[in-house]
Amino acid sequence: MNNINSIFYPKSIAIIGASRQIGSVGHSLLANIIDSRFQGVVYPVNPKAHAILGIKSYPRVLDIPDDVDLAVVIVPASLVPQVLEECGVKGIKGAITISAGFKEIGGRGVELEQTVKKIIQKYNIALVGPNCLGVVNTALDSNMNATFGTQMPKKGNIAFISQSGALCVAVLDYAKEANIGFSKFISMGNKAGLTENDLLVYLNEDPQTDVILMYLEDLVNGREFMSIARKITSHRKNPKPIIALKAGRTFVGAKAASSHTGSLAGSDKVYDAIFDQCGVIRGDTLEEIFDYVKVFSSQPLPKGNNVAIITNSGGPGILATDSCIRYGLNLATLSKTTTKTLKTILPPTASLNNPLDLIAEAQHKQFEVAIKAMLSQNNVHSALVILTPTAFTDVEKISRSIIKVSKRIKKPVVSCLLGVYDVSKGIDLLEENNIPDYRFPESAARALAEMSKFTSWLKRPKTRVKKFDIDKKRASQIIERVKSEGRSFLLEQEAYDVLKTYGFPVVQSVLATSEAQAISSSERIGFPVVMKIASPDILHKFDFGGVILDVQNKTETRKAYNKILRNIRAKMPKAEITGIMVEEMVVEGKEVILGMNYDEQFGPILMFGMGGIYVEALEDVIFRLAPIRELTADMMIEKTKTYKILDGFRGGPVYDTPAIADCLKRLSQFVMDFEDIKELDINPLIVYEKGKGCKIVDARIILKD
Amino acid sequence: MNNINSIFYPKSIAIIGASRQIGSVGHSLLANIIDSRFQGVVYPVNPKAHAILGIKSYPRVLDIPDDVDLAVVIVPASLVPQVLEECGVKGIKGAITISAGFKEIGGRGVELEQTVKKIIQKYNIALVGPNCLGVVNTALDSNMNATFGTQMPKKGNIAFISQSGALCVAVLDYAKEANIGFSKFISMGNKAGLTENDLLVYLNEDPQTDVILMYLEDLVNGREFMSIARKITSHRKNPKPIIALKAGRTFVGAKAASSHTGSLAGSDKVYDAIFDQCGVIRGDTLEEIFDYVKVFSSQPLPKGNNVAIITNSGGPGILATDSCIRYGLNLATLSKTTTKTLKTILPPTASLNNPLDLIAEAQHKQFEVAIKAMLSQNNVHSALVILTPTAFTDVEKISRSIIKVSKRIKKPVVSCLLGVYDVSKGIDLLEENNIPDYRFPESAARALAEMSKFTSWLKRPKTRVKKFDIDKKRASQIIERVKSEGRSFLLEQEAYDVLKTYGFPVVQSVLATSEAQAISSSERIGFPVVMKIASPDILHKFDFGGVILDVQNKTETRKAYNKILRNIRAKMPKAEITGIMVEEMVVEGKEVILGMNYDEQFGPILMFGMGGIYVEALEDVIFRLAPIRELTADMMIEKTKTYKILDGFRGGPVYDTPAIADCLKRLSQFVMDFEDIKELDINPLIVYEKGKGCKIVDARIILKD
Repeated sequence: MNNINSIFYPKSIAIIGASRQIGSVGHSLLANIIDSRFQGVVYPVNPKAHAILGIKSYPRVLDIPDDVDLAVVIVPASLVPQVLEECGVKGIKGAITISAGFKEIGGRGVELEQTVKKIIQKYNIALVGPNCLGVVNTALDSNMNATFGTQMPKKGNIAFISQSGALCVAVLDYAKEANIGFSKFISMGNKAGLTENDLLVYLNEDPQTDVILMYLEDLVNGREFMSIARKITSHRKNPKPIIALKAGRTFVGAKAASSHTGSLAGSDKVYDAIFDQCGVIRGDTLEEIFDYVKVFSSQPLPKGNNVAIITNSGGPGILATDSCIRYGLNLATLSKTTTKTLKTILPPTASLNNPLDLIAEAQHKQFEVAIKAMLSQNNVHSALVILTPTAFTDVEKISRSIIKVSKRIKKPVVSCLLGVYDVSKGIDLLEENNIPDYRFPESAARALAEMSKFTSWLKRPKTRVKKFDIDKKRASQIIERVKSEGRSFLLEQEAYDVLKTYGFPVVQSVLATSEAQAISSSERIGFPVVMKIASPDILHKFDFGGVILDVQNKTETRKAYNKILRNIRAKMPKAEITGIMVEEMVVEGKEVILGMNYDEQFGPILMFGMGGIYVEALEDVIFRLAPIRELTADMMIEKTKTYKILDGFRGGPVYDTPAIADCLKRLSQFVMDFEDIKELDINPLIVYEKGKGCKIVDARIILKD
Repeated sequence: MNNINSIFYPKSIAIIGASRQIGSVGHSLLANIIDSRFQGVVYPVNPKAHAILGIKSYPRVLDIPDDVDLAVVIVPASLVPQVLEECGVKGIKGAITISAGFKEIGGRGVELEQTVKKIIQKYNIALVGPNCLGVVNTALDSNMNATFGTQMPKKGNIAFISQSGALCVAVLDYAKEANIGFSKFISMGNKAGLTENDLLVYLNEDPQTDVILMYLEDLVNGREFMSIARKITSHRKNPKPIIALKAGRTFVGAKAASSHTGSLAGSDKVYDAIFDQCGVIRGDTLEEIFDYVKVFSSQPLPKGNNVAIITNSGGPGILATDSCIRYGLNLATLSKTTTKTLKTILPPTASLNNPLDLIAEAQHKQFEVAIKAMLSQNNVHSALVILTPTAFTDVEKISRSIIKVSKRIKKPVVSCLLGVYDVSKGIDLLEENNIPDYRFPESAARALAEMSKFTSWLKRPKTRVKKFDIDKKRASQIIERVKSEGRSFLLEQEAYDVLKTYGFPVVQSVLATSEAQAISSSERIGFPVVMKIASPDILHKFDFGGVILDVQNKTETRKAYNKILRNIRAKMPKAEITGIMVEEMVVEGKEVILGMNYDEQFGPILMFGMGGIYVEALEDVIFRLAPIRELTADMMIEKTKTYKILDGFRGGPVYDTPAIADCLKRLSQFVMDFEDIKELDINPLIVYEKGKGCKIVDARIILKD
């Protein structure tokens, strides 16, 4: 941590590779540090120059007579290891390596990056880069622009972490237009030293930072990211929203991402799970994250979902309404008090609804009274003000009215002044006063909705990972036995036994090795029963006549026992037969699927989905990284698109979702207890009406090789 | 038509309600006409003024000594009828009524609008408005800005029709920034005279217009709109894309829309159908339609779906890739020739893929060679060029290179120069040269994808409405009989008979009125059969024990016959029993649903969806207005989200979709033949594997009251 501090708040910086050549990176970077009015001291390092930009230069970093906190390295890639070695010897604790030519070019570059890693570990240097644009800190006691970009951002409360240097340059330019300010600005490059996780930990403690914006192409450690991000977004007193754009959403995009920085992109569904589980707001486009960061950095969070739309033109009001509804906001109804107030200032023909159309003639007075009246309602949590300039409007006066009301009432207000030139002065006024203005009504609505979602995240019931009291040892014995037999999969009965140990509601079943045992087992379980072949050689039992359903009595049991054996002997004469499974024939219910896959990068990932081919075709499944908290289990079920079918759809039954959630939590504990498990499928789990539980009727467990 | 021409190309205009008062609408409007260098003569009309803006003024329109082509009316609503009456007497053929206070305020306003309608019909006046901003025509021989907005748009090839006056003002402002030019600009207001349909017909013939942009809150006549729009978008030599934003997508939004201009909003799903069926490009947001219109008005259409992405920065390239894939474009692979060419200009470490990352150091030379090489490939149909300004880039030079290549190769090129200020000169250069530049890579990708979709629309196989040779008279007799009996629904057997007449594959069935007849019918149909109660009083037959499935033989038939009668007599003693239906028991297949609903506004609307509760929960159904062409029937099936299940999903069977399409076409003909039908459900239609057809096993037909 101390070392990271020397990156953001160095008292002295060595610019290794500083250059006299105008336009070169080594020149731009030095000039930027000087021009940003850096509060410490700068030492250019260049083997040939005597002075650069009027500042005395040193041949090597070791020649600098004073202590140095931070080295900015701009030399060719091949020289970087030697330079960092010297930095280590000099006792420098922080380094920003701008130089490219490492992992991103493959081959030789990969090796070079490994060497760099070893050196920084040896000297305990905190490193940003290589292959990056640099770092900015706008804090007054630092004032450091250690980048080779063309602009120093405005001071503000947003920290930006980017895995793309090029994007940093563009972001600075957009930010200037949108009047957005930054606290810290970090181009991470190849992340050979500091990663997004280290930086998040640092920014969590940074008093200048209220909102964290990230551009990511991969995560170095998804689980660590989750736990750090969760802490930040869930902080009791001072939660900081994290807004992330993760490139590589589509398969082709992910391939492009991995060829870009040599990063392992991972499945995008897993990233969705990670972000959802730790409250990170994921934007889909560059534009979205800008839209979000504007409002999060400037407005208080809404207390709820209800918005008031105030407009002087119908059309844009309707467009905003459509978007509010689409993104999950409600339009609050007008209170009697509001209606009464509005009647005093609006013509009698005005229709008093939400969206509230003040009509084209509205002046600042009407806007002010209307916004104030609506925001004062307890059931209104935010306001979206739309202004279309007409022949009658004084844009500046109306903007001032919006600002005035917004300053008095602590609820989020966003505006949309339609147009560009006609409204530019109004927009400037609003943004100077921290009211985010959007180019289009739909974007304003979407940004407000995102605020509301973050409020829901903060208000969520805080739950823990439930710990079931189970006999882990017994499950362990079964799995060890399977392994000792050289198998990488559990037989059905073994899978059932393991799951039973973990308290899953498994269908009743007995392995019978004789006709007599089959009959006595059937009687014990109770007719009707299902009979299935048990064989380590047969995975698809149905295909070989290995399953007989609805066996009604002793006689049928006897017949079925022999018929299954005959079928298998005829069709799979070499199969080893362990016996015949006699199973309870369960009554019909709704089929759902539970699963787990062990991901090389992210560990065990749980899956939930409704059964049936339609759901498969729609890929309507939800993933979550294990272990899951109690709330997450509920969310996995509720977030599927077809969830409503479990919840009394069109007068149908309400199914026992708590029983499914219970299974998901047990599954989470099981896969966390046994790292050996590669894949697990419970398909189907049959769910009954609320209170009647659920039952596993098929399960498959595969171990890692 | 001639009269519409007098609105756009008047030789003389009377401004009735012109005013000396600066800031008033009557003053602004006159000033705008003068300032736009209108090519005809203007006559202010004002009962008190002698002259306005130095132009001689007349007390009444009838006092004008010369012929007048167009009247612009700005007087208070109550005076409008009298003024229009005078215009009629004067022989004026076109009018633009700016005045508000009509349908949109309800009550008295509605009546006033009716009066206006009568007057314009009486004198055959083409009227724009009332309650509108006015009309602009940028054609050199007109040069008319007859609006009270603050800006005259640039001359261009886009016609804009808007149902919101306020939006017009904002659009002019956005257009200025985006360097977009207009041919005609029409604020329709309440559409008391000219509607979107009249204007579309006019614009189709307008040589200055290449693209039509619309903002709509409703359609006055959806079927007429479809046929006009289809003609325009499908024109063989000169198709004009129509880009529409229809507000009121959500239910709440639609309610807001109807309270806004008193328009009947209609179901949004129907609007989707209408736009889809006539090739209109529907944008979801204001921003989208701007993005689309920019590229459609400036670039040639692509020949296909394959795009090349050329970038100097990885991150934005990946974001663009994600969006291209999401919106349905493919990334073309690099040809050997291209690879060879690229190797000569790029460092050996560059990875030669699409997206092509030229890396930060790329100069205009690299851009030029790369864009040219990729666009020259036959399998590349469009290019998206992304430029992130770095310390090394000369934005203007690179922009010139993009322009140079784009001028030589007739394929669409769009650009995304990331940022604002750093790239502004480049953006200006590009846009002056008709290359649309987008703020964000994702928007550029989406716009290109929309071009591609329009190409597919143009290339679609041209099909007709298939006319089946059927015995309409027989169907008519059945329906007339139902009506004569005072029923508003058909009995199952009647519905089957009607559908059979139209050639539908209806399940074999016979109505038996005795035990003996039931047995002989069963034998004729062949066992097993299904037996069902037939009664005009029982809709839900299953609920009362009125259905017995899988009847295997004579004995079972006899038993079932009596059991059904017993059940019904016990549970519905008063029900009239027509007999017992004996039906073929069909083998299992995939269940789909066909339907029709008669919409008050839009007429018969066909529906197709897959069967099952999941599909219901997801509302995965497609609507189309009848009659449908052959291609539309196929599209209805293919556009459902779960379509892939019919097409060999995961090794499953390929179902007989041509047989479903055949049913849809027959259904279309049937509902067009009989206007009396209010609702029709074929649920389920059971579909078999390709070549094996399908079968209706339940149908419900309801007549209008």
